[in-house]
Amino acid sequence: MRLQFEQNLGNLKDRLLVMAGMAEHAIQRAVEAYQARDLSICDLVDYGEQAIDHMEREIDEMAIDLLATQQPLAYDLRFTLAVIKINGNLERVGNAAGSISDHVRSLQTLPQVDLPVDISQLASLAQGTMRDALRAFIETDGDRAQSLLSGGDRMDQVHKTTYLLLSSLIERQPELIPQALNTMMIARALWRVAGHAKSIAEDVIFWVRGADVRSHMQHAGDGWTN
Amino acid sequence: MRLQFEQNLGNLKDRLLVMAGMAEHAIQRAVEAYQARDLSICDLVDYGEQAIDHMEREIDEMAIDLLATQQPLAYDLRFTLAVIKINGNLERVGNAAGSISDHVRSLQTLPQVDLPVDISQLASLAQGTMRDALRAFIETDGDRAQSLLSGGDRMDQVHKTTYLLLSSLIERQPELIPQALNTMMIARALWRVAGHAKSIAEDVIFWVRGADVRSHMQHAGDGWTN
Repeated sequence: MRLQFEQNLGNLKDRLLVMAGMAEHAIQRAVEAYQARDLSICDLVDYGEQAIDHMEREIDEMAIDLLATQQPLAYDLRFTLAVIKINGNLERVGNAAGSISDHVRSLQTLPQVDLPVDISQLASLAQGTMRDALRAFIETDGDRAQSLLSGGDRMDQVHKTTYLLLSSLIERQPELIPQALNTMMIARALWRVAGHAKSIAEDVIFWVRGADVRSHMQHAGDGWTN
Repeated sequence: MRLQFEQNLGNLKDRLLVMAGMAEHAIQRAVEAYQARDLSICDLVDYGEQAIDHMEREIDEMAIDLLATQQPLAYDLRFTLAVIKINGNLERVGNAAGSISDHVRSLQTLPQVDLPVDISQLASLAQGTMRDALRAFIETDGDRAQSLLSGGDRMDQVHKTTYLLLSSLIERQPELIPQALNTMMIARALWRVAGHAKSIAEDVIFWVRGADVRSHMQHAGDGWTN
């Protein structure tokens, strides 16, 4: 019975890691779609978003079955609930990828221009935060999750700089407004991905320590939130 | 024992409704702060956001205690998990209020101008969607939740119109860019509130029907997502 239970917990964790891989891949593809202005990659992102939605449901049902049939306690109960929460955050990462894909489609209808922003840098910060959060989950590492939350926020800075750059660009070149605004929204989606990764880190801490440190996407009082 | 259990479920539901009231109030206040350009209301929103974060934790812990000590099954198990999910969505509504408050602060540093957008309308659509979702929860009404999800999306239209209006405004009057962009972000936060309300409707359906219809903030392929 205990062996079966351990196996079920292990299966749940494995399945969540598949979901995490799908979400990471979605962001990767969405950024590629932006860089190559390639609508066929947008199609892949949209298709992947549906697959992520299905996987989210499957994982939720696995977790509920486990709660119903095995009635885990303490650490295992918190683990199962953390999986449900992380699962929801990963689905939101999938949504962010879908949003990027939508804005790439809009950009594709406009004259292509080189804007003075580094989407690759934002993407790499977002992906790095995701990787850190997932590693904390895989390694049951509350300290790693905590340091992800308490570290200075490079992502906030780069996102803010991107916003200001685009904002001053459209002041000088109003003909680039549509391109600049779509790019601003892509930057924002990547910034949100980092926020979801932080929520995942909070879920890991909730599980590992039984202490809830949540302060989702806490705002710093300067308008750079949500 | 069963009586105690029913009482615990009732307490959990009551507490979630307190949380919902706090989230609704936060949006109400944030919109008032915008309309009156009143930073003292922003302070209230920020203070309220902390209270919402605390309440989120309290409800999660109540739900976990209930799962651990009473091990609910079937309908009651799904209810308890729906509470955890709805709780997370309400906390995100609180974040959206905080985001509006941040942008009001930014607006306050700029010359005040009348922009041709109707934030009240967006607010009233967002609040209406919230109310519908919460009523579906209170009345255990899967049909109401479903019709909220399948109805034509007026919010999407008004949000898109607001974006286009502001976008063409800054083309004509680039000196208004900072005001227009902050207002755009306030509109977006309200649009997100409606999205969180839809997620709540999905959580209600998950609970009532045991069927998961999730498609959080599904994107329509035109860039108006996330």
